[in-house]
Amino acid sequence: MTIETVSETRSHGGTQGVYTHQSSATGTLMTFSVFVPDHVPGEKLPVLLYLSGLTCTHANVTEKGEFRSPCAAHKVIFVAPDTSPRGDDVPDDEGYDFGKGAGFYVNATQAPWSANFHMRSYIEDEMPQVLADNFAMADMDLLGITGHSMGGHGALTIALRNPARYRSVSAFSPIVSPLNCPWGEKALAGYLGPDRAAWREYDACALIDDGARLPDLLVDQGLADNFLEGQLKTHLLAEAVDRAGMEATIRMQPGYDHSYYFISTFMADHVAWHAERLSA
Amino acid sequence: MTIETVSETRSHGGTQGVYTHQSSATGTLMTFSVFVPDHVPGEKLPVLLYLSGLTCTHANVTEKGEFRSPCAAHKVIFVAPDTSPRGDDVPDDEGYDFGKGAGFYVNATQAPWSANFHMRSYIEDEMPQVLADNFAMADMDLLGITGHSMGGHGALTIALRNPARYRSVSAFSPIVSPLNCPWGEKALAGYLGPDRAAWREYDACALIDDGARLPDLLVDQGLADNFLEGQLKTHLLAEAVDRAGMEATIRMQPGYDHSYYFISTFMADHVAWHAERLSA
Repeated sequence: MTIETVSETRSHGGTQGVYTHQSSATGTLMTFSVFVPDHVPGEKLPVLLYLSGLTCTHANVTEKGEFRSPCAAHKVIFVAPDTSPRGDDVPDDEGYDFGKGAGFYVNATQAPWSANFHMRSYIEDEMPQVLADNFAMADMDLLGITGHSMGGHGALTIALRNPARYRSVSAFSPIVSPLNCPWGEKALAGYLGPDRAAWREYDACALIDDGARLPDLLVDQGLADNFLEGQLKTHLLAEAVDRAGMEATIRMQPGYDHSYYFISTFMADHVAWHAERLSA
Repeated sequence: MTIETVSETRSHGGTQGVYTHQSSATGTLMTFSVFVPDHVPGEKLPVLLYLSGLTCTHANVTEKGEFRSPCAAHKVIFVAPDTSPRGDDVPDDEGYDFGKGAGFYVNATQAPWSANFHMRSYIEDEMPQVLADNFAMADMDLLGITGHSMGGHGALTIALRNPARYRSVSAFSPIVSPLNCPWGEKALAGYLGPDRAAWREYDACALIDDGARLPDLLVDQGLADNFLEGQLKTHLLAEAVDRAGMEATIRMQPGYDHSYYFISTFMADHVAWHAERLSA
């Protein structure tokens, strides 16, 4: 799978790249960013995937995430994909929370979304292959995953369905149970149809209740986040991991909101946490 | 001088605020940002002013500068003003390098610019008063100044004209001699008229040649910066400080360009350098 280089810029002792490729999963041109710390020829580095939230592209975290300094220090490659297919031929919705910018990391089964909205396959299968084919220094056996909000939901559900593939899993202010919030109900009904049983594999709490397990988990959630009560409902994840007897560090951070001012504050902690678990 | 709060957001163990005020220097509504690290009541913190470059507002460095983590660690307040007056009544130019977004930190003497373009007085006189009146924790006797590109030019020239007022001075990829580059010639001719003798107080190299001195100085400049050869000409500053026998650390950084990917890389170094010189 070939990629095109949009830009490669030196930053923090590494290279921040932006690339495009023709995706077979979505049938569209997809853009993603990769930060590669300096390394010696032949050296292999672990890879941390970051899934972004509603309305975002690769650019938000790439510009505001403050991950390059810790990733360079820990020698971790940082990959930021887009959140949905894009393009004039891709269907969209009037809302910011469905359609373009809101792929919810599912494989849609309902028309017209089922033609392009396969962000589950894109992240689970295609992105690792694109990285393996184009970034020789990426050790795809040392793979971690994280994300923010809708992307935190993506990171948790993808890892819970594929626990052997990801050595480390964390999330910033994740949507922990799409079955139990307006964002999730709108998106999963739209992409998957009305049968709520089909939604459970896209719900971190339901996956845990249905038996999925991770060895551990780090979650940061701001207590001044306007979406905490109505959409994110972090307590549902705390209750699910408690019922399951699963290790999880869920930190409620006083005063912090849902923005990149919050994410960037705790990014270095997350990168260090992943780096510890991704050391070969 | 009263200010209005646009937003205050918790980040990196401090408060990132954005504020507006009616400026007497420019006659317009001005926007600026201030990051205040957590502190105990009554504690006074040093202040670092950051002057932005062409086309920028307060927002560019506030979002992409990666200054909050080092400023919180060193307990330094970080202030980012706008680069020019704004508003429908303010004259503008078709170019990105003159008029709005391009105040060049001068007091314009030529119509129509002389009505509003007084960024020298705004930074030298009004901004410190606004901070003193509204941020009780700001120790205005412990003031440092830095900036990028046009803002690096601003930081150098303002400090060279007022060496007793700023305890520490640094710059990222500054325009070191407006007298000797197209950006500078266009801006100074436009704001100050054709008499090049009047430009010298707005030219760091000319100020040094005319006798201005600073105790020391830190400059970082990327060697892959597209503007290095034609506009920035860092060597002219190196030659001027050498002629003057002035202390200066001028670091040429291989591979780095003119963007915030460069600035953010060296921001922590600059904040630490200022913090050392701003300790009471």
